[in-house]
Amino acid sequence: MTPLDTLIKQFERFPGIGSRQARRFAFHILTLSNEEVSQLVHLIQTVHSQVIPCPSCFRFHTSVSGDTRCSICRDSSRDVHKLTIVERDSDVDAIERGGVYDGLYFVLGGMVPLLDSQDTKKVRGGALKHTIKTRIPQGLKEVILAFSINPDGENTGRYVSMLLNESIASNAITITHLGRGLSTGSELEYADSETIKNAFKNRS
Amino acid sequence: MTPLDTLIKQFERFPGIGSRQARRFAFHILTLSNEEVSQLVHLIQTVHSQVIPCPSCFRFHTSVSGDTRCSICRDSSRDVHKLTIVERDSDVDAIERGGVYDGLYFVLGGMVPLLDSQDTKKVRGGALKHTIKTRIPQGLKEVILAFSINPDGENTGRYVSMLLNESIASNAITITHLGRGLSTGSELEYADSETIKNAFKNRS
Amino acid sequence: MTPLDTLIKQFERFPGIGSRQARRFAFHILTLSNEEVSQLVHLIQTVHSQVIPCPSCFRFHTSVSGDTRCSICRDSSRDVHKLTIVERDSDVDAIERGGVYDGLYFVLGGMVPLLDSQDTKKVRGGALKHTIKTRIPQGLKEVILAFSINPDGENTGRYVSMLLNESIASNAITITHLGRGLSTGSELEYADSETIKNAFKNRS
Amino acid sequence: MTPLDTLIKQFERFPGIGSRQARRFAFHILTLSNEEVSQLVHLIQTVHSQVIPCPSCFRFHTSVSGDTRCSICRDSSRDVHKLTIVERDSDVDAIERGGVYDGLYFVLGGMVPLLDSQDTKKVRGGALKHTIKTRIPQGLKEVILAFSINPDGENTGRYVSMLLNESIASNAITITHLGRGLSTGSELEYADSETIKNAFKNRS
Repeated sequence: MTPLDTLIKQFERFPGIGSRQARRFAFHILTLSNEEVSQLVHLIQTVHSQVIPCPSCFRFHTSVSGDTRCSICRDSSRDVHKLTIVERDSDVDAIERGGVYDGLYFVLGGMVPLLDSQDTKKVRGGALKHTIKTRIPQGLKEVILAFSINPDGENTGRYVSMLLNESIASNAITITHLGRGLSTGSELEYADSETIKNAFKNRS
Repeated sequence: MTPLDTLIKQFERFPGIGSRQARRFAFHILTLSNEEVSQLVHLIQTVHSQVIPCPSCFRFHTSVSGDTRCSICRDSSRDVHKLTIVERDSDVDAIERGGVYDGLYFVLGGMVPLLDSQDTKKVRGGALKHTIKTRIPQGLKEVILAFSINPDGENTGRYVSMLLNESIASNAITITHLGRGLSTGSELEYADSETIKNAFKNRS
Repeated sequence: MTPLDTLIKQFERFPGIGSRQARRFAFHILTLSNEEVSQLVHLIQTVHSQVIPCPSCFRFHTSVSGDTRCSICRDSSRDVHKLTIVERDSDVDAIERGGVYDGLYFVLGGMVPLLDSQDTKKVRGGALKHTIKTRIPQGLKEVILAFSINPDGENTGRYVSMLLNESIASNAITITHLGRGLSTGSELEYADSETIKNAFKNRS
Repeated sequence: MTPLDTLIKQFERFPGIGSRQARRFAFHILTLSNEEVSQLVHLIQTVHSQVIPCPSCFRFHTSVSGDTRCSICRDSSRDVHKLTIVERDSDVDAIERGGVYDGLYFVLGGMVPLLDSQDTKKVRGGALKHTIKTRIPQGLKEVILAFSINPDGENTGRYVSMLLNESIASNAITITHLGRGLSTGSELEYADSETIKNAFKNRS
């Protein structure tokens, strides 16, 4: 394989990129000036070294002097009774945009796929147990599972519940799931039975 | 306009049909045999005369000997404390598929569009008031609004609430809305703020 | 099956209509007034009896006093040296919109599918032979095959060529195919090899 | 702007990438190991320095010992009478896949947009004139314009014709365009008038 082919292969590993677009990315690199390539390379290296995971919630953030924790974990006004577990950094962003949740987070880093339940290599199970253990004496009362509503999300929920089973039982902590029902834009006619069931159960 | 053009115009009034497909429908009619056309015409006339709205819930159904009420309104095992108001017949089908609701229905027949709130001509407001009045002495306790989660659905909800205001206040009946939250298939990253807010509020 | 179910089945036979939309059509019929249903039924019957195939080219058209031929076949200014064979009436409309072709037509009524070459029941083979035979003494010189560029279209082309083989050979008539190349909107990058090959061959 | 934001901006300049996907690319970088980042950076730099434009046709290619020309320009079996001008490297790949063209190429590097005809900064006009001048004594007889069939492609064709006007007139070289007609998969019913017109003109 030529370096060009190897680079195309690398771009194919970018999320959502197929072989044709990876090829176009490589040609995009070819059209850049020397200065532009230097800048791109420098940015990749800088971001990779400066943007680090928070040691408590594992969100990526740019470290500021001395403190390696992220802005949410450092914020003493957040409610330490609640901790929401999400798959990805972008889920934290989405929930913060919602503007109602004021507790803490933990970014699991991946899902536990239903069809290959042993595949937990991207999932930070050990780190989660450690963070929960640290948060309990600080007042943690509720762990909220906020995964996608699909088979992998449900499997990840089961995996996390099992993982936390012990520490939670002995400390009177409850595990809750995000409420299900009709989303914005939903039409009854096209809603699945499970969603309709939950919409009736959660009516108010 | 030739009869062909007039027929095409009629097909354009079928739900979801544009001019090109209406044209193809007309050509489809041309390729039918005399027998097939007779059968189609006969079916349209039969269905239009035999399939009638239930006088209580206004669902369309095939009338059986003597009783003009639909199978749900005739079913004495349904819970008369609850009545769900929906826009269309197909919404009743969707809720029945859900398999958890055992109360009664009312089919409103249309929405009250937000941008033209006076346009209530397809909405059976008077009939709704009459049905509710009849259902109260039979034990009605809860009216469930089950409209689409969009501006027109919300406007229709406001319209119905206003319409029922009086009879409901004086009879200790509550109006409820279907629960909102994450639907099957939802991913947090792509969920809107309103849905996330409700998902956190309805967590359990 | 109730008449409603039978009507839904009929609507499912309309081109491009699935079961859900067929159901919505049936409910659309239910919401029509008695007058609207009478009008629709009358139009279907009128169109089916008045709009007839031209005895020469088999285009559907509204017959006018006495002459059962369509407006194109009656038009003495059309070039009788050329006859284009198409699958459907709508293909004639498309070619007429093109505004360059001034010859005659024959509407075959269907394709000969590649995977079931015996399935020629919708194809007017006998009528085509008859029309060609009639057109030869009137000056026919070229038969243009204008089928879709896909396997079924190519198979239909082979079928028609075979069918006309004899009468054409003995009368010095040529069979031609529509030119292939880049269509409006084509981008080279996404064009298939066959199209590129033809685009180079037909360059000018 | 933090380095992370700047990197996201850089990824937004990749072809076809919006802000959400650019963000996901940046997070993808964060999840790479140190070794993977080093490899990616090294590949970008290597490809950018080793993959160079051919001095004759301006295709990007990996330079081999001594000769900076690409494999097609070095290939003495190619027909020097013909030169096809395309917009992008990927167009050359598409034509080569077609397998019928055996002449030379010139990669223009961009289009001349209709709405901003002055915007020719990515277009290698001067280089094109130079390459044509060099190719004439070698036997060039035909310049084939192979641009997309859309307003920008046609405008680019006019621009190139004007540019080459002089050298071509005085050397008996012809300019040709790729043939137009029905592409693979085309259906007459949906074809535009221009395509139908060309399909009839190019029939054979």
